[in-house]
Order: sequence, then C-alpha cells, then structure tokens
Amino acid sequence: MRIADLETPVPVVDLDILESNLDRMQAYCREHGLRLRPHVKTHKCPQIAQMQMDRGAIGITCQKLGEAEIMAEAGIRDIHLSYPIVGVGKAERLGRLANRARISVSVDSDQTLQTAEVAATMSGRQIGVWIDFDSGAGRTGVSKVEEAVRLAKLALANPNLVFGGLITYPLTPASETFYVNAESAFKADGLSIPGFSGAGTPTAATAHLTPGLTEVRHGTYAFHDRSTVGDGAATLEDCALHVWSTVVSRPTPERAILDAGSKTLSSDRVPEYAGQGFGLIREWPEAVVERLYEEHAIVRIPEGIPGPQIGDRVRILPNHVCVVVNLHDHLAAARGDEIREQLIISARGKTQ
Amino acid sequence: MRIADLETPVPVVDLDILESNLDRMQAYCREHGLRLRPHVKTHKCPQIAQMQMDRGAIGITCQKLGEAEIMAEAGIRDIHLSYPIVGVGKAERLGRLANRARISVSVDSDQTLQTAEVAATMSGRQIGVWIDFDSGAGRTGVSKVEEAVRLAKLALANPNLVFGGLITYPLTPASETFYVNAESAFKADGLSIPGFSGAGTPTAATAHLTPGLTEVRHGTYAFHDRSTVGDGAATLEDCALHVWSTVVSRPTPERAILDAGSKTLSSDRVPEYAGQGFGLIREWPEAVVERLYEEHAIVRIPEGIPGPQIGDRVRILPNHVCVVVNLHDHLAAARGDEIREQLIISARGKTQ
Repeated sequence: MRIADLETPVPVVDLDILESNLDRMQAYCREHGLRLRPHVKTHKCPQIAQMQMDRGAIGITCQKLGEAEIMAEAGIRDIHLSYPIVGVGKAERLGRLANRARISVSVDSDQTLQTAEVAATMSGRQIGVWIDFDSGAGRTGVSKVEEAVRLAKLALANPNLVFGGLITYPLTPASETFYVNAESAFKADGLSIPGFSGAGTPTAATAHLTPGLTEVRHGTYAFHDRSTVGDGAATLEDCALHVWSTVVSRPTPERAILDAGSKTLSSDRVPEYAGQGFGLIREWPEAVVERLYEEHAIVRIPEGIPGPQIGDRVRILPNHVCVVVNLHDHLAAARGDEIREQLIISARGKTQ
Repeated sequence: MRIADLETPVPVVDLDILESNLDRMQAYCREHGLRLRPHVKTHKCPQIAQMQMDRGAIGITCQKLGEAEIMAEAGIRDIHLSYPIVGVGKAERLGRLANRARISVSVDSDQTLQTAEVAATMSGRQIGVWIDFDSGAGRTGVSKVEEAVRLAKLALANPNLVFGGLITYPLTPASETFYVNAESAFKADGLSIPGFSGAGTPTAATAHLTPGLTEVRHGTYAFHDRSTVGDGAATLEDCALHVWSTVVSRPTPERAILDAGSKTLSSDRVPEYAGQGFGLIREWPEAVVERLYEEHAIVRIPEGIPGPQIGDRVRILPNHVCVVVNLHDHLAAARGDEIREQLIISARGKTQ
C-alpha cells in the first residue's frame, strides 16, 4: 500500500526521518555523557518507545499513570513519571506499576511524596523520587531551594524511596541558578544531589552546557513540528510526521477547504515567529490555514497562485505534533511512499 | 459507584440535564413544525443518538463517513452527511453505507455530486442530495443562487438521486436572503425546493423565524458549554457535561495546577464576552484557567480567595464541548452523584 491509497485525513510518519531524529539525539547524548530518557507524550506508541530504548535510552518518561501502564504492559522496564501523582486510587496504581517496572516519580509537595511512599510500601519495591523545581515556566515545582532540601530529606529518611535528584522543565538560565544554589545548600547539610534532569526539545542542542545536568527527557524531537522548527531546533527536513489531507471544496478562488479540522490538527497555535495559521501546507507554503472548524480547515489562497484543487492531497505540518498524535488511533508508518505498518497509538487518550 | 470514586480527569454527563436538553429542543421543533436531525459530532455516542431518535428526531447528521458508519452499525437508519465527500474510496464507502441506512449528503460542487452518483449506482439505492450554500461563514457551500440551481438540476436529472433541498450553516440573515432568492430562481425554472435545512445551537431558539426552514441539525444543545452559554443559548444550569479534575500542585498561593490540560480540555478558546481562559471552574468561578500544557491546567487564584487545595476535585465547564468529548473514550453518565453507566464514545476520532 502506498500513501496515496490511504483515506484522509491521516497522520503519516516517515520512518527514515524518525530514525534519523532518534539516532541524532542519542548520539548527542552519548557524546556529552547525558542519559536520555525520552518523553513518550509525543508518540504514545510502545513501538517507537522501543526504538528509543534500542538506541540507548535508559528508560522513558510519561506524564500520566495511564501512559505508563500501557508502556509497562508493552515491556518498557524503566519509567519516570514527571507529573504530580495525587490521590489514593492513583497511589495504588503506582504501587501495581512498581511491580512491573523500575519506577521513579517527580514530587513537589508532601502529598506527592506520600503517594510515592504509599506505592512503595504497597508494592515492596523501592521508588525513585526526584524533586521538581520551577525554572520559570510557572507550572509545577518548588520555587525555593530550602523546600527542595526539605522534601529530599523526607525521601532520604524513607528506606522505600530512593532520592534521584532534581528535575525541571524547561531548561533555562534560572534552572542553572537553582541547581547551583541547591548544590551548595545540599552540601551544607552533608547531602549530595545524585542526578539532575532537564527537558525540552527547543533547547536540546545546548543542554550539555547546563552545569550538573545528568539526564534529559525530550519528547518532540522524535517527530518535530512547526513549533520546534520555529524555535530553530529542527529544519523542515527533520519533520517526520505530516497530516495528509484532501481538498474537499473550492468555494472561491481565494478559499480552499481541507478535510482536516480541529479534531484532526488540534487548535494549538504557534508564536508569530513560527508562522501563521494552524499548520503549514508543504506543497503550498504561501497558503494560510486561517481557521479551523471541527472537521474543516479554511485555507486562504493568496492571489497569483492557483492553490490545490478539489481532490488534491496536501501534507500539513502540524503546529504541535504531540496533541495531533493524541487525536488519532493509528499512525501510518512509511518509507518513501510505501506504507510499512500501522502503528497503534496505544497510550492515546490516557489522561488519567 | 459515585462521581467521587472516578479517577480524574474525567468527563461526566448529568443524565437529567441531558434528557431535559433533548426534550426541550424536540418540543420546540414540534411546536414550530421543524424536523430535528441532530448533529452527533457533539456526543459521538450511538446511545445518545438513540435517545434523540426516541424523542422524535427524524434522523441524525454526521460530518465524516466514519461517524456515519458507527451510527449505522448501531442501528440508526436515517443519516445525513453534511460534509463534502470527495474521492473514489469514500464514494465506495458511501455506497456501502447506503445499503445500511437511508442516506443523504450535502454537495457544493460537481465532484461531490459525482460522489453521490457513484455511491447510488454502486448500491442501487437512492441517495438524497442537498445543495450546500454559504450563509456567511466562509466555509463550504455555493455562494450564488445560479450555482445552486445548476447543481439541483443535475441531481434532479439523475433517477438515483433525490433532490432534498437547500442546506446551510449557520442560520444568519444572509441565509434568509439566499433562500428567498433561490425560491424565485427555482420557481422561474419550474422547480421547487423540497426542504431547507439550517443548523447552529447559538441561534436555535429563533430558527422557526427563518422563512422556508423545514429542518434543523443542531448538535451542541445536547450538552451545552461555555460557548453556548456565552451566546445566550443556555444557562449554566443547562450544561450537562463537566470535566472533573483534581488539584495536583499548589506551588504558590496564587497558582493551582489541575490534572486537565489540552489533551483533556482541548485548546479551544471562547470569545471574550463568554469568559476568560480555557474553561470555567464551577466551584471557583473567580479563578482563571490561564494556560494549558498537554496535561496541566495553570489556574490563577485571585487574591482574597483560598482556591482549591491539593487533592480537591473541581468541575470544569469546557469552552467547546464537542472537541472535548472527541478526546475521550468514555463518558461517565451520572444521575446526581451516582454513576449509572460508562457511555462509549464510539465515533471518537473518526475523522475519515
């Protein structure tokens, strides 16, 4: 089967580009002595996780327990949950998971530390604990070094837990400052920081310049997208996933309608420097995907170019590939024009 | 099982409110002599489609063939596809579908008319053809009355097709003008327009004022959301679906993190008049869901209120319920606090 035989809209992964992206990141990490623990949020596919492991990844990163359960089921044996896990039900699931894989978690509060304690006690397995700090994103994480020290001491006091180190997202100048200050504070208490984990494809190429960094958890680098191209972390040639779409209406010369709306591409935008609209049409880069309905893309065709006609197929480079993959059940995996395999996005929708 | 026993994040439908929304719309249509053909894009769930049929809907509306195939499989016997269907593969699927249900389609081009012709010939079943016109949205549809007449004549000339009438979305003053002009043009050619179909929950309450309207295809009215409340088409009490979410981090007094990000709530926004941020927290309406990561909601807690604490659960009213439902595999259906059923969102992700 060839790509042209697929019904649209359909996400298609170019395996050559995917493999090259995985190889390149692994080579970079090897060169700089960084451990690579890819974030599977981007592909949600155990087969691609396995490709990453086969190349030398030390394990994977998941956000939600549901993703980790799918990956453990598929045979991945070392999983970090870079997400605050809260509640009795989730602690029990974490305990069951710890019986199937080596587990570590990010914590930024007494409650999330307790989740790890309950799960470790329940499973009889040690669980790794990394203290999450805020490097400026204003998301999760402690903002004070003293709080990191306090939580680390609690982890160190519990024989069922293994203190892994400090963890943050993204890597910024503030993350360096925090780490350096933390190192002094830990040392003052006679403690050391075993590891330091950072993440974020946009700054992946300079991660090795971060003092103390031992591990990275990038995700988007596997596929890349319009956002990471805009950030200068990739070129268009590095983009492994496109949504193939068909022109279904040409109501006026300046308007084309594609069969890919927000239920196919998501409504995620990119900053202005990365481009206009809801995706880049590779064959018609001057055209702008101006608006999305749930199943329609409204494309503005600039004067002077014909634009695609009804029945024509185009490749859309998504703004944000991670949320696009999460909308689909399968990825068509191609070499050149030939479809080699339908990859099942097994962890799609595993938000719990 | 009670709602409090569910893992979060989870979409929960209040069956009492859902039933009341369905009853009210059916009563309105009955009162005004309008046929109701609900759009299933909102719930993508055959059981809810059946609830609509049981109340008097004449059939359902789908966008994509994949949705229609699921609904036909589940026993729905009258389906309109309000979407331009293009391509040989899709024409064949439409033909097979016509063997399982009474099918009509929207067309706005020779190509989409040909799809209907191929499918009708292949199946030996008549297929209904409605001419889609643009009432101002700038999406699909012919923009000239003469083009509607031309396509209608082509449909009328083919014994395998049944000309259904004119169809548009949304209903606007321009749709009235187009219809009135079309009526004269058709009459001048000795033709009549058998039906006129409009759609759009925001203006549903005044649909009966549209001259000539025979049928409506509203979707969102089943659940309502922050958008239709903002449009004045519903009150907060009419909103049947909320995403239950847990506070997983409280890094600072002014910031709370919920376990529902863009993979749970979508990135759809609402116009400013409908509110700020990515959803309304019912228990803390002053709080603003300022930013979404894939699995995190970043909530700003205004000064002077404590906001929810780690482990607390909150109900989020989504900005746009149709895209939220499409992110999940199940809907928990509740009466009061009690979960009665897990509804399977069978047509989720059926974008083809």
